[in-house]
Amino acid sequence: MGKVYLVGAGPGAPDLLTVRAARLLERADIVLHDALVHPETLALAARARRIDVGKRYGKVSTEQRFIHRALVEAARTHETVVRLKGGDPMLFGRGQEEIDALREAGIEVEVVPGVTAALAAAASLKASLTRRGIARTVAFLTPRVGRGESASEWVGAALEADTAVLYMAAGASREIAGALIAAGKPATTPVALVESATLPGERRVFTTLAALAEAELPRAEGPVVMCIGEVFRQPAAVESVLENPHIRTA
Amino acid sequence: MGKVYLVGAGPGAPDLLTVRAARLLERADIVLHDALVHPETLALAARARRIDVGKRYGKVSTEQRFIHRALVEAARTHETVVRLKGGDPMLFGRGQEEIDALREAGIEVEVVPGVTAALAAAASLKASLTRRGIARTVAFLTPRVGRGESASEWVGAALEADTAVLYMAAGASREIAGALIAAGKPATTPVALVESATLPGERRVFTTLAALAEAELPRAEGPVVMCIGEVFRQPAAVESVLENPHIRTA
Repeated sequence: MGKVYLVGAGPGAPDLLTVRAARLLERADIVLHDALVHPETLALAARARRIDVGKRYGKVSTEQRFIHRALVEAARTHETVVRLKGGDPMLFGRGQEEIDALREAGIEVEVVPGVTAALAAAASLKASLTRRGIARTVAFLTPRVGRGESASEWVGAALEADTAVLYMAAGASREIAGALIAAGKPATTPVALVESATLPGERRVFTTLAALAEAELPRAEGPVVMCIGEVFRQPAAVESVLENPHIRTA
Repeated sequence: MGKVYLVGAGPGAPDLLTVRAARLLERADIVLHDALVHPETLALAARARRIDVGKRYGKVSTEQRFIHRALVEAARTHETVVRLKGGDPMLFGRGQEEIDALREAGIEVEVVPGVTAALAAAASLKASLTRRGIARTVAFLTPRVGRGESASEWVGAALEADTAVLYMAAGASREIAGALIAAGKPATTPVALVESATLPGERRVFTTLAALAEAELPRAEGPVVMCIGEVFRQPAAVESVLENPHIRTA
């Protein structure tokens, strides 16, 4: 019976993988990976069978069951199994369900943490998520909007924290900004959107909740994190643009 | 004029550094590092002058000014300057002040993100900070208690998020648990304390807010993160211990 390593692939750039993760990939017998993992990262697993188990067709529950079955099967037939997940495996994503399924099957699991997208975005922005006198609390969340979902599940956490970073939010940025303003977040609150953080196609957009609530964002090509809070306020030169409802790319 | 890299050293274990950080250390001319960085991590900077700028004697403001001066001076006399900080440089710690001081001096800065302690603790606990149906929002915070400080600055964020991870909180765990219960967090909420996550001396303690509010914790030898929320509820065998006000080490 093999062992399964749930490994964080980091935010995107292949050299933002941890040394431990790189070594595990080098000795892996089989790698089951998310769709968005960088090809150079996968290439580290030179001797491994590599299987893309990225979600497709929106068939989430079926796919997740398939991943569990594939992981258990991989551990029964291989010694070192790497389950490679984007970012960190214990934050957004269904790591717990995978751990539980493996444990139920009596398979040993170890977790290797990774750099999460919010911290990669903060590094790109050169903006600390916390800052003396401005922010001492940070919230990470995945807001769900539309389809009869209520904002009450997530809006309180985004409101109470000095800094909020929203994952998987770009498609609904207008509704999210509207919900935050309606809940009492100042409309002038700065927002920084970071798309494909740490990759060559990275884009940074500086705006405000008010502007986001009015404009539909162009469709993103990579994953986007939405960073909200005073710590993202830009220097004076950029700030005058923030009062304009248009969105500015830097 | 040199360039300064603000680099996350990760949570403790030297192989939880990113590949990018390891390569930067290898080519650094000078490294200014926190006190808690692992000796094996520092050893990567074989050709660099290494300076411990860790805080001491509680003289925080003086020391921070000293760090700024040392960074500017290092950039004036060396090509590749690494400022190595525990965990991630953009989350708790005074990364922003260091960036601002360098920019004011006209020095180029780049930030290399790292694995933060909360994610290392989650990996050790094999407990996802988010979990379908239980937790979709996570807060990271540094509570300040005592010395005339009000809990109102941080308690809302810890209360509103489904999962909360508190940094630098071990010394005041009793007051923190008391403040959270007083603010309305259920006293039965599970708590996992992780000391020296990812290091050989790692300890994990499972308890509840109620038990924490009653017991003084033994003095920690390494950094502790306090993980609060239903996602940390332990399986039945451990759970019966949680009803007991004593603290259990696993």
